[in-house]
Amino acid sequence: MSDTVFAKILRGEIPCHRIYEDEHILSFLDVGPLSTGHTLVIPKEPAVTLDALSDEASAAIGRVLPRICRAVMKATGATAYNILQNNGLDAHQAVMHVHFHIIPKLDGKGLGIEWNTNEIDHAEAGKLAILIAATI
Amino acid sequence: MSDTVFAKILRGEIPCHRIYEDEHILSFLDVGPLSTGHTLVIPKEPAVTLDALSDEASAAIGRVLPRICRAVMKATGATAYNILQNNGLDAHQAVMHVHFHIIPKLDGKGLGIEWNTNEIDHAEAGKLAILIAATI
Repeated sequence: MSDTVFAKILRGEIPCHRIYEDEHILSFLDVGPLSTGHTLVIPKEPAVTLDALSDEASAAIGRVLPRICRAVMKATGATAYNILQNNGLDAHQAVMHVHFHIIPKLDGKGLGIEWNTNEIDHAEAGKLAILIAATI
Repeated sequence: MSDTVFAKILRGEIPCHRIYEDEHILSFLDVGPLSTGHTLVIPKEPAVTLDALSDEASAAIGRVLPRICRAVMKATGATAYNILQNNGLDAHQAVMHVHFHIIPKLDGKGLGIEWNTNEIDHAEAGKLAILIAATI
C-alpha cells in the first residue's frame, strides 16, 4: 500500500472522524470541508484512480453511497448535495488514493461548479460512442 | 416512471449516443458536453436522487464505472477526469433522474471546480461523525 494520508488512516496511523466501515470501505469526515458534513468514502483497495479500481471494490462503494448520503443529509439537515470523485492532478485530485466526496449544499457553502457546455457535433458523437462502446 | 428526458431515453422515445447497457444501467454521451467524451451513467430504476436509489441499483452503477471510465479515457486520450453526481436544484441537478457524469479533462475543457475549504472544528466534527454514524 502506498503512503498517502488515506493509507495512513486505513492503517490507523492517523486518526479520523469515522462514519462507516465494512470489509471494502471506510468513510470519514473531510478535514478540509467545503461545508458541514463534507464526507469521504474510500476503498480499502489502494487504487490511485477509479479506472484502476476493481469492479468489486467500486460496486461496494456504490452500494453504500445511498445510505451514507441519507445519514449525512439527516444529520446536517441539507437537502441538496454533490458527489464528486477526481482522477488526476489536472482534475483536482489531491490525494492519490480513490475517494468519493459527499458535499452537502448548506448555508451557501458546498461545491462550486463552473458548467461551460459545448455544442455537440452529433456526427462526431455518434462515431465516438461507437468507439467507446467497442472498448468496453 | 416519471417524464424526464432520461425516462424518455430509457423508453426509446428519444435517441441517444449509447455506450453501454445492462440490466440495471444505461450509459450514453451527454448532449451538452463539458468536453469531448462527456458521458452519463444512469440507473434504469427511476430515483430522483442518489439517497432514494436502491442499494442494488447503486452497486450496479459502481460496478460499471471503472470499465466505462477506462473506455472513455482510451477513446478520447484524456488522462484526467471527474465523476460528478448532483442531487437537488441547489446542487446543479438539471434532470430529475439520478445520473453520474464522467467528464474528461481535455484541451483545457472539462469540469470547473471552485474549492473553498473551511477550517474544521474537531470537537464539532467528532460529534457530527457520531451523529451520522448513528443514523446509518
